[in-house]
Amino acid sequence: MQNSNKTEVKKTKTSKSKVNLQPVRGTRDYLPEKQIFREQAMEKIKRIFEKYGFVPMQTPALEYASVLGKKYGEEEKLIFKFKFGDEELGLKYDQTVPTARVYAANRQTLGAPFKRYVLDRAWRGERPQAGRLREFLQCDIDTLGTYSLAADAELLACANEALAAIGLTNFTWRISTRALAENFLKSCGVADVKLQAAMRAIDKLDKIGEEGVAKELLEKGIGQAAVDTIFSLLKFKGDFDKIRSTIKIDPSVEDALLKFISYLDEFGVKNYTLDLSIIRGLDYYTGPIFEAKAPGFKGTIAAGGRYNHLIELFSGVEIPATGLTIGLDRILEFLKFESKKTKTALYVVGIGKDVIPLVQKFRAEGIPTDLDLMARGLKKNLDFANKRGIPYVAIVGQEELSKGKIKLKEMSTGKEELLSFEQIVAKLRALPQ
Amino acid sequence: MQNSNKTEVKKTKTSKSKVNLQPVRGTRDYLPEKQIFREQAMEKIKRIFEKYGFVPMQTPALEYASVLGKKYGEEEKLIFKFKFGDEELGLKYDQTVPTARVYAANRQTLGAPFKRYVLDRAWRGERPQAGRLREFLQCDIDTLGTYSLAADAELLACANEALAAIGLTNFTWRISTRALAENFLKSCGVADVKLQAAMRAIDKLDKIGEEGVAKELLEKGIGQAAVDTIFSLLKFKGDFDKIRSTIKIDPSVEDALLKFISYLDEFGVKNYTLDLSIIRGLDYYTGPIFEAKAPGFKGTIAAGGRYNHLIELFSGVEIPATGLTIGLDRILEFLKFESKKTKTALYVVGIGKDVIPLVQKFRAEGIPTDLDLMARGLKKNLDFANKRGIPYVAIVGQEELSKGKIKLKEMSTGKEELLSFEQIVAKLRALPQ
Repeated sequence: MQNSNKTEVKKTKTSKSKVNLQPVRGTRDYLPEKQIFREQAMEKIKRIFEKYGFVPMQTPALEYASVLGKKYGEEEKLIFKFKFGDEELGLKYDQTVPTARVYAANRQTLGAPFKRYVLDRAWRGERPQAGRLREFLQCDIDTLGTYSLAADAELLACANEALAAIGLTNFTWRISTRALAENFLKSCGVADVKLQAAMRAIDKLDKIGEEGVAKELLEKGIGQAAVDTIFSLLKFKGDFDKIRSTIKIDPSVEDALLKFISYLDEFGVKNYTLDLSIIRGLDYYTGPIFEAKAPGFKGTIAAGGRYNHLIELFSGVEIPATGLTIGLDRILEFLKFESKKTKTALYVVGIGKDVIPLVQKFRAEGIPTDLDLMARGLKKNLDFANKRGIPYVAIVGQEELSKGKIKLKEMSTGKEELLSFEQIVAKLRALPQ
Repeated sequence: MQNSNKTEVKKTKTSKSKVNLQPVRGTRDYLPEKQIFREQAMEKIKRIFEKYGFVPMQTPALEYASVLGKKYGEEEKLIFKFKFGDEELGLKYDQTVPTARVYAANRQTLGAPFKRYVLDRAWRGERPQAGRLREFLQCDIDTLGTYSLAADAELLACANEALAAIGLTNFTWRISTRALAENFLKSCGVADVKLQAAMRAIDKLDKIGEEGVAKELLEKGIGQAAVDTIFSLLKFKGDFDKIRSTIKIDPSVEDALLKFISYLDEFGVKNYTLDLSIIRGLDYYTGPIFEAKAPGFKGTIAAGGRYNHLIELFSGVEIPATGLTIGLDRILEFLKFESKKTKTALYVVGIGKDVIPLVQKFRAEGIPTDLDLMARGLKKNLDFANKRGIPYVAIVGQEELSKGKIKLKEMSTGKEELLSFEQIVAKLRALPQ
């Protein structure tokens, strides 16, 4: 009996210590310093999106599984789907399919062209061992309702500025069009029925390398000669003249590509290069496609393309559209970040004195102010303010206060001054935000 | 054969028209005008939270089901849970349990007291017919690591300012403490083992009314005499002297309540009333509890309380904490909202002229600018800018431009002026944001 009790106690302890304190694999907790940085970045990106005329629109995290099943192709297996009661629900895999649903439902109200942005999370059931995030923040811009390739080019100009605003300038857009990719593969000898399979294989070039792609192409029944031609032409990256001299580019395909490029030039986008290996994984792209890569950055910084047939799945009528996504969480990992630990400017400590009404007075003046809630001694409070990164501490003693003064300590220098309430307010208001 | 083909076509059409364009029941799409208003409200609330010394921290939407199972009590059945591969996952039901997990994992780094805020969604599998949201935005503040009831009072002061910032001032906090509620019920004759059940029943007062609560109390085996006493005392709301003259309040219970109230006074919180019927549904509350209600507002505007034992479930050691949630989405439904449709200040139309480089020049000056992407005529473009709520249209003609001038039309008045690029920039910069 005693023995069994002992085991009982042990079990409880074991189960307590076994509580998993880590976030779900592939997701992250954002502690204050990182979250402040993240929110600053989001704020900067939003301002640029708005400067380009995009307006915010947000859709739920939850969607009906039938909506999420639209047009993702192979990626569908990565959708977090579940049954809840009698409903089949899931978490959105990207912002594009929900946007298509909302636009189809509201296009009379929203009009055309409709330029919207969203900063929201998406969820993908990636294998955690691959180091990929399963919950991540996307910054999306989309222009719906126009065939004009100026809309596509504008997306890149806007993303260039948004990325520059958060400190990322050393990157290049690899551009192509879906038609060019098809034209290229056909010229290399890939049969029409095998185009989709070939594109999916080539899309994995960054992930599995030339050898892996070649293997997959052969497995899909594409002949060795075609595979050899594909890789010899992929080496021409960027050099459109060389590509044209080797394979026959359809005039309409060339026109669309050159039109897109001329718009890029008009919008002042210079950091692009033609790349036949750009395919974009999702099946829904129809026109220009683009991916931004940076030296040392594993994966894609931003990517997108034109998807003229996606909204039709919801609306029943063709509605042209083009969009672009910036994968912010991975970029913020890549950038060296320097962030404030807090926005609090002042920490108030009372020496044997309750300071709450004074703290409220500082706050009423708009000064971000915190106070000692633990009735700790002065040294502990100074250490605390220092650790929190609060730049100033107000030390409030009965004697000074009776003279209308408060001692203000600047934490970075240790300098102390006897100042009035108004003087402290004026000083802290003048601090850089 | 032909017949069967016809059926095939019909089927496709039917299935197309049957696509559900609505968001998941209990969730919402936020179209631009509403989303702009929502983001403005979030921004204002964040600024107030920061003024009170709270720092942002964010946790994932996804949590392990084992984490979500901690301490929700009856509410657990409302959690969206699902199996993905071999993992049991779920969507967070509130911000408090994930916060407890993160603080338990990082308390050496985060220190005490730790004041954090978050504006994030939570998900609950509410029955849609009740009109409750299943995906909604919470604005939370929590102070972790201190027993001081000043921390609890500070939450209400901060929430008062945050709600005032978005235009909500006509509301009252109903306050109580868990100990007072227990003291009250025991004095009414409720046995210790039935306290929890009695509190859950009384917590439903707003939803099911006196009759419903009485029925539930009787069903739980609480005697008619006790039930009668409970309801006669509930009528004393707010009048602490009357309550004290009728039932015996334990001195330590009274001390804690009066301490909380004195802190409310010091923080300048005046809009509160004592209310014995306040229980708060979740099992994890231990100290002061509070709910804000407004006339005409169905449900709770903001609510929270002290939860000194929740973090212990993750950390193994007791860590005191108190927190408060503002349910923003329901408040924004309640407030009459007036919001800009766009932040775009200028719409540029070229008369037989490509205007992209000029648009880029306006944007480079920081003017939120949009352009005609559809090559439409002037009248259609003016209608479009009007519908979008863009205040100014620049009409760019070859002749004017050769003289260094652009025609600027103010949409609200119809007034047109010939101005230089620099004059337009200066004029639009001076606009109120």
